[in-house]
Amino acid sequence: MTRYFRLTIPQARTEGDYLTLTPEQHHYLGHVLRLGPRANFIAMNGQGQAWLAELSLDTSQATLIHPLDHAHELPIDLVLCIAILRNNALDQVIHQATELGVQQIYPLLTSRSLPEPSPQKLTRWQRIAQEAAEQSERLYVPKIAAPQAWTEVLKLGDPLSRKYICSLGEQIRPLVNQLADQQATSREIWLAVGPEAGWTETEQELARAVNWEPVSLGSRTLRAITAATVGLGLIANHPIKQP
Amino acid sequence: MTRYFRLTIPQARTEGDYLTLTPEQHHYLGHVLRLGPRANFIAMNGQGQAWLAELSLDTSQATLIHPLDHAHELPIDLVLCIAILRNNALDQVIHQATELGVQQIYPLLTSRSLPEPSPQKLTRWQRIAQEAAEQSERLYVPKIAAPQAWTEVLKLGDPLSRKYICSLGEQIRPLVNQLADQQATSREIWLAVGPEAGWTETEQELARAVNWEPVSLGSRTLRAITAATVGLGLIANHPIKQP
Repeated sequence: MTRYFRLTIPQARTEGDYLTLTPEQHHYLGHVLRLGPRANFIAMNGQGQAWLAELSLDTSQATLIHPLDHAHELPIDLVLCIAILRNNALDQVIHQATELGVQQIYPLLTSRSLPEPSPQKLTRWQRIAQEAAEQSERLYVPKIAAPQAWTEVLKLGDPLSRKYICSLGEQIRPLVNQLADQQATSREIWLAVGPEAGWTETEQELARAVNWEPVSLGSRTLRAITAATVGLGLIANHPIKQP
Repeated sequence: MTRYFRLTIPQARTEGDYLTLTPEQHHYLGHVLRLGPRANFIAMNGQGQAWLAELSLDTSQATLIHPLDHAHELPIDLVLCIAILRNNALDQVIHQATELGVQQIYPLLTSRSLPEPSPQKLTRWQRIAQEAAEQSERLYVPKIAAPQAWTEVLKLGDPLSRKYICSLGEQIRPLVNQLADQQATSREIWLAVGPEAGWTETEQELARAVNWEPVSLGSRTLRAITAATVGLGLIANHPIKQP
């Protein structure tokens, strides 16, 4: 299988079958990746569309040859809610979540998570998502929302969607069992992971009150970063019954 | 639930119900964790046994009060084989694999992986596994083997055990389907993850020749670090049919 370089392009830059490259993209393709005239690459608009593209002779623009299919996207819309973690751990969560096919990520402010980060952090997370989408050959770049309170995020989403909150406790049902027993009722599945110090009882009660289901990921204590990757991996690999 | 501090102690240091602390352990419990006389903590021998322990009045030794159970261990022996990755990525793989319940990790030398690391690296990996086992309340500290060639590792293990090699390609069956269809034939399950640049065709053929089954983790391209965590998470969360 030929592996082409991938480039995310804002939709506004395409006109018909032509794609005009910015000076930065021109430099990147020609001087960093060393693509020559008529070289092929993959142009993605980050909104679910991608094309096999061919550089022009002067490498300043490209022709879109044909659209690519959605084979690398999940059949569901997977949404991750995750508390803001110490030591920039969200950088890795966002990279891995993108590899695993998420569509949207909500960084959460919770009682026991870090305070609101600087706006630069959101820009950094969006850049990580874009790079990860290119590396993992996705057509969508996941949207990273601005950090907001868990109580606000609880108001969002399709009321019919399945929503799982990772919780600790011996009575909590495993996520795999919940996935096996349930028919999907909407295209959306949400997963929420709390901070290292855990959710408060109130945060979990508020979620249960709006139909979030507590789930466990096994009998060992996982760090938040591991819980996010494993939880998303279980959902992404579970055969989904379409609504 | 009360959370106790955990300490890994070499088996040789216990004598009957008494545990003699090394000067380092004494310093750690008394001065770093600030445990006082008669404080409780959990003593693990790293071989699958753990006890609730109580510090003596002078905090130089401890009494083992009662053994703890195996609730945090998997009912199977999970073995991870993983190529040595760039940027110290194995540090994180070993931490997450320990959280997920592995018993043994084989760092692999493959055609496309990094060359053999320094011996200090193995010591570092073993320390990470020990810390992760304490944090995730495990009774076992996974054994980390010295790095060795994939062809040597292919000779190891129970011949009846299930062995899965993560592979790319549209014809490869998903790991979840393999897990669902198969009866366990031994207590062991092995998972192998190649380097970022992939296995060679020969490495995969040699594995298939000794009953390693190629498996996929979905239609997206995962980094090795993500593949290891997701693959182990799928096995650890799969309801295992005991042989």
